[in-house]
Amino acid sequence: LIKVGIVGATGYTGVELLRLLASRSDVDICVVTSRELAGTAVSKHFPNLRGYIVLDFSAPDAQVLNQCDVVFFATPHAVAMHSVPALLDAGVRVIDLSADFRIKDIAVWERWYKTAHVCPQLVEQAVYGLPEVNREAIKPAQLVAVPGCYPTAIQLGFLPLLEAGLIETDRLIADAKSGVSGAGRKAAVDFLLCETTESIRAYGVDGHRHLPEICQGLSAPVKTGTKVTTGQLQSIFEDRYANEPFVDVLPQGELPATRDVKGSNNCEIAVKYLAETDTVLVLSAEDNLVKGASGQAIQNMNIMFGLPETSGLRSIALLP
Amino acid sequence: LIKVGIVGATGYTGVELLRLLASRSDVDICVVTSRELAGTAVSKHFPNLRGYIVLDFSAPDAQVLNQCDVVFFATPHAVAMHSVPALLDAGVRVIDLSADFRIKDIAVWERWYKTAHVCPQLVEQAVYGLPEVNREAIKPAQLVAVPGCYPTAIQLGFLPLLEAGLIETDRLIADAKSGVSGAGRKAAVDFLLCETTESIRAYGVDGHRHLPEICQGLSAPVKTGTKVTTGQLQSIFEDRYANEPFVDVLPQGELPATRDVKGSNNCEIAVKYLAETDTVLVLSAEDNLVKGASGQAIQNMNIMFGLPETSGLRSIALLP
Amino acid sequence: LIKVGIVGATGYTGVELLRLLASRSDVDICVVTSRELAGTAVSKHFPNLRGYIVLDFSAPDAQVLNQCDVVFFATPHAVAMHSVPALLDAGVRVIDLSADFRIKDIAVWERWYKTAHVCPQLVEQAVYGLPEVNREAIKPAQLVAVPGCYPTAIQLGFLPLLEAGLIETDRLIADAKSGVSGAGRKAAVDFLLCETTESIRAYGVDGHRHLPEICQGLSAPVKTGTKVTTGQLQSIFEDRYANEPFVDVLPQGELPATRDVKGSNNCEIAVKYLAETDTVLVLSAEDNLVKGASGQAIQNMNIMFGLPETSGLRSIALLP
Amino acid sequence: LIKVGIVGATGYTGVELLRLLASRSDVDICVVTSRELAGTAVSKHFPNLRGYIVLDFSAPDAQVLNQCDVVFFATPHAVAMHSVPALLDAGVRVIDLSADFRIKDIAVWERWYKTAHVCPQLVEQAVYGLPEVNREAIKPAQLVAVPGCYPTAIQLGFLPLLEAGLIETDRLIADAKSGVSGAGRKAAVDFLLCETTESIRAYGVDGHRHLPEICQGLSAPVKTGTKVTTGQLQSIFEDRYANEPFVDVLPQGELPATRDVKGSNNCEIAVKYLAETDTVLVLSAEDNLVKGASGQAIQNMNIMFGLPETSGLRSIALLP
Repeated sequence: LIKVGIVGATGYTGVELLRLLASRSDVDICVVTSRELAGTAVSKHFPNLRGYIVLDFSAPDAQVLNQCDVVFFATPHAVAMHSVPALLDAGVRVIDLSADFRIKDIAVWERWYKTAHVCPQLVEQAVYGLPEVNREAIKPAQLVAVPGCYPTAIQLGFLPLLEAGLIETDRLIADAKSGVSGAGRKAAVDFLLCETTESIRAYGVDGHRHLPEICQGLSAPVKTGTKVTTGQLQSIFEDRYANEPFVDVLPQGELPATRDVKGSNNCEIAVKYLAETDTVLVLSAEDNLVKGASGQAIQNMNIMFGLPETSGLRSIALLP
Repeated sequence: LIKVGIVGATGYTGVELLRLLASRSDVDICVVTSRELAGTAVSKHFPNLRGYIVLDFSAPDAQVLNQCDVVFFATPHAVAMHSVPALLDAGVRVIDLSADFRIKDIAVWERWYKTAHVCPQLVEQAVYGLPEVNREAIKPAQLVAVPGCYPTAIQLGFLPLLEAGLIETDRLIADAKSGVSGAGRKAAVDFLLCETTESIRAYGVDGHRHLPEICQGLSAPVKTGTKVTTGQLQSIFEDRYANEPFVDVLPQGELPATRDVKGSNNCEIAVKYLAETDTVLVLSAEDNLVKGASGQAIQNMNIMFGLPETSGLRSIALLP
Repeated sequence: LIKVGIVGATGYTGVELLRLLASRSDVDICVVTSRELAGTAVSKHFPNLRGYIVLDFSAPDAQVLNQCDVVFFATPHAVAMHSVPALLDAGVRVIDLSADFRIKDIAVWERWYKTAHVCPQLVEQAVYGLPEVNREAIKPAQLVAVPGCYPTAIQLGFLPLLEAGLIETDRLIADAKSGVSGAGRKAAVDFLLCETTESIRAYGVDGHRHLPEICQGLSAPVKTGTKVTTGQLQSIFEDRYANEPFVDVLPQGELPATRDVKGSNNCEIAVKYLAETDTVLVLSAEDNLVKGASGQAIQNMNIMFGLPETSGLRSIALLP
Repeated sequence: LIKVGIVGATGYTGVELLRLLASRSDVDICVVTSRELAGTAVSKHFPNLRGYIVLDFSAPDAQVLNQCDVVFFATPHAVAMHSVPALLDAGVRVIDLSADFRIKDIAVWERWYKTAHVCPQLVEQAVYGLPEVNREAIKPAQLVAVPGCYPTAIQLGFLPLLEAGLIETDRLIADAKSGVSGAGRKAAVDFLLCETTESIRAYGVDGHRHLPEICQGLSAPVKTGTKVTTGQLQSIFEDRYANEPFVDVLPQGELPATRDVKGSNNCEIAVKYLAETDTVLVLSAEDNLVKGASGQAIQNMNIMFGLPETSGLRSIALLP
């Protein structure tokens, strides 16, 4: 029985972690922390968990957390780094859903997150938790940095092309859209229903914080740009992800949609060559709270603890 | 040219007042106040007003407001009552979209709004701004209390039945639903898109603040319950609202929907007798920000200043 | 291994049956029929099932269906009744999600569904599949009529009151709202996004087909109207549903919302006494495709086949 | 008084034409045709028009249409071309919202629209109704082809860059998203609320019919690619659209959103230079039924008939 703690579980990635873990017989959720809601029943805050989670939120307590096998951080950026060193010292493994340990170049991280990193020495040893790239490194990892939602979908879409040396790398354009849940569960006018429903708008046009993470992830596999024929694209993608339980390369002619992955840990990908403009078009769709956050975090946990990688992650997308 | 001031115009009733007034040639919007946004362009806060409103928000200033012919209060409850006495003394007419002057019984008001009323003496002279009932009293009014959104739709639906003495008054049931905009434009988790979209939930089940307002409005016309035939219902409603520009009794067989009144000042009503349960069913739909707030406020202004009642209010609902 | 067939599984109740059954190790989905889509992969029609359901749709074939242990009908009304007699004769048990066997009074059924019933003799033996009322009768049933979505939520809400003789039965008012999925997956302008999003409208005001079903279900338990105190209400409901796995009586002060049951088989209920109007207010929320249709159908299957009633139905609501 | 006819006004561009024209004192809507709905009140089909449009739909009748000054076609593609020649012969001016006269190269048109053009000789004389480019040619035009929604937003966004010779033209990438109303008001499963709400999906990845129209429009202004400084971009756009009533170049730092143009004829544009990738980012937002269809059609009418270009088109976007 894996003893699990969750720090800062009052937002959408938190409730999704709890939803995915609550029914598992091989996991014991020992502690769910929130300073603000300490003493409140978790199921009062998240009514969908009534009958499944009987814990109250508690204030973070090192004594308690130290007894966990693994602690998930579902906190805002620049929070986990303050607690992670002590947890690692106590032998607890850590899966951080925030950005604190994703970027190897500390200076880049500090520029984008506008704060000093308090444990840069741990960044190097942290494993970037994209199983489709780092599976072997994740297994023994003490500290895993779970990729963000955009980086997951974008890297999974570009990787086969880059690894095969198929494209000119100065022309990569990622057109990514997120639902409002990507902004988290915080009281802000900008994310009210009346400000967002039936609308679409740009943000982060000066540069999104996920950009350095994506660039870091994609800079490794680039090879020289040898051309291949169009017909090879589909099989390159299918081969690349043949053994991946959560990357689904759709048959030619089918296209991904966010509705088809709602609540599932799948990333669906379609690939197509557009002859008229000599362009490769890759479409990838994921649930930003599952494969883009909490589901992927649990996929990492499964790998780290030698469990079947799909444990607790086989729920089918809800439709409609 | 009517000189208009708007106090507290940073929310949804505020922007709707501005949208409806901006294009009018007989109105001069002199001042739009907001302590918080003083110095900011109104059109920066509400991008839909770019090119139509060139004012900046300014801090409330009695000197400036006193020079208006009429001041609208689009403020939260218990704000207007602090400023209205001085404005009335200065000869400014006031149209209050909040609840401060709606309830004649001060004790009831104080119980529901949980604060002491600071100018109870003005409540008696305030006119309840439901033109379909109080048109003559509105004309000379110095102070108008604009009805809330639920009270407007519910009273317009019940009034013909009560005035005609058609129903047992201890069985009136109003099943009212509001869009999220009824909660205003405030930073609160409960009204985030992710908390509300594609969902419906109850609130105020212990009693909604609009209840005393509705009861007050409906207690006047009640007559004894003489039965009438079914066929009379439609003509009773059509007769009652025959000369009302903004109450539209639909032909038998057509039913109102909120989408059919989006952005318009119309209240659409359908009435039906259900023989099986000996029940009269009335359906009424309005845009809660127009006929339920800002549109009705302007309808009152038109009446008060001897303008055509429909001035600036004839825009057609946007569909889809 | 229970051999399951599904007839007419191209709509929303069909895909929900498949989603809930696909992961079960005690169920073998043998055949999924659709005349229109025969030969098409089920997972092409419902992309969320890719990797979980490998069957193609096939045209209905008595030979094949007769080899099933149980056949679900997810067909429009007046379809199942044509095939059910032969299936029962072949020893196959039937769970019908349509209305064909819900109403005991054939004349009433024929009036509401505007067609002649072709096997009225089977209606009497059909068991109304509301486990909270009929669990014992469901166990040996050969033919189960799964309740509609409104009837489920409404009966579960009213039953404790009626059984306890707490209310005047001529004053029951059910104010029920459904999402658009209740209208099914059919090409019709009325249910386009542009015709429905962000809007609410009435329908069926002359009488909804679920009305006779609800009346039939509630007419049984009515006792005389002895008054009880307010404080007893909560415990009456809690007692009534104490052993029900899928009816969740919320603690006083918490209110149900459809978002809290999305994708789950739970019906959440809150009850409240409104002293001012001497009224009992019951609020119940369910996912109309799960507890209101396919989840309840599977709950019936579990009961019929002696399986744990919650098998395959413990998935937690998806939030947000 | 301009006598106006509208052919095929049963969809979303049709109702939007009617909404925008209904209140005008300089326009007389003489006839609104629909074969299917002939004899039905227009306001029964479009309830938002109750009290504003008293006409019934009528079957198309050349006699009646010939007496109009101008006829709008709000028909599907390949319909208008059958009736336009006779109308022009009768001296009626035509504004076609469909694609029939947008593409000068007949072979290209026939390839994309998969039908033979029945009056290719008229295509050459048709004026492409983008006022920001063709204002002078529109004035005397007998036949105007109103641009599609994507072509309007995309051309207005790219034109200043191309005219100034600022960009490499083989790198233009238009990332365009449309609301579901762009698919029209037709009974199709794909556009049901349950199939589309809260989701996003790709379509037309093999090539969208608007592509040749966009290429045709943009191929004219391309000059050689002389580099300019970043700071010039904003003023280039502001200068280009300085006198355009319906193109609003936002101040630096403000970004367009579809909600800010809902129901208005404005196209809002922001422009930005991204140094890190040496890319110019242009964001443009419009209401696809107004500036992207019916509003632009009326803007053309105003120009053709020597009316103020903004007549009837100054309504402010509805927010929220």
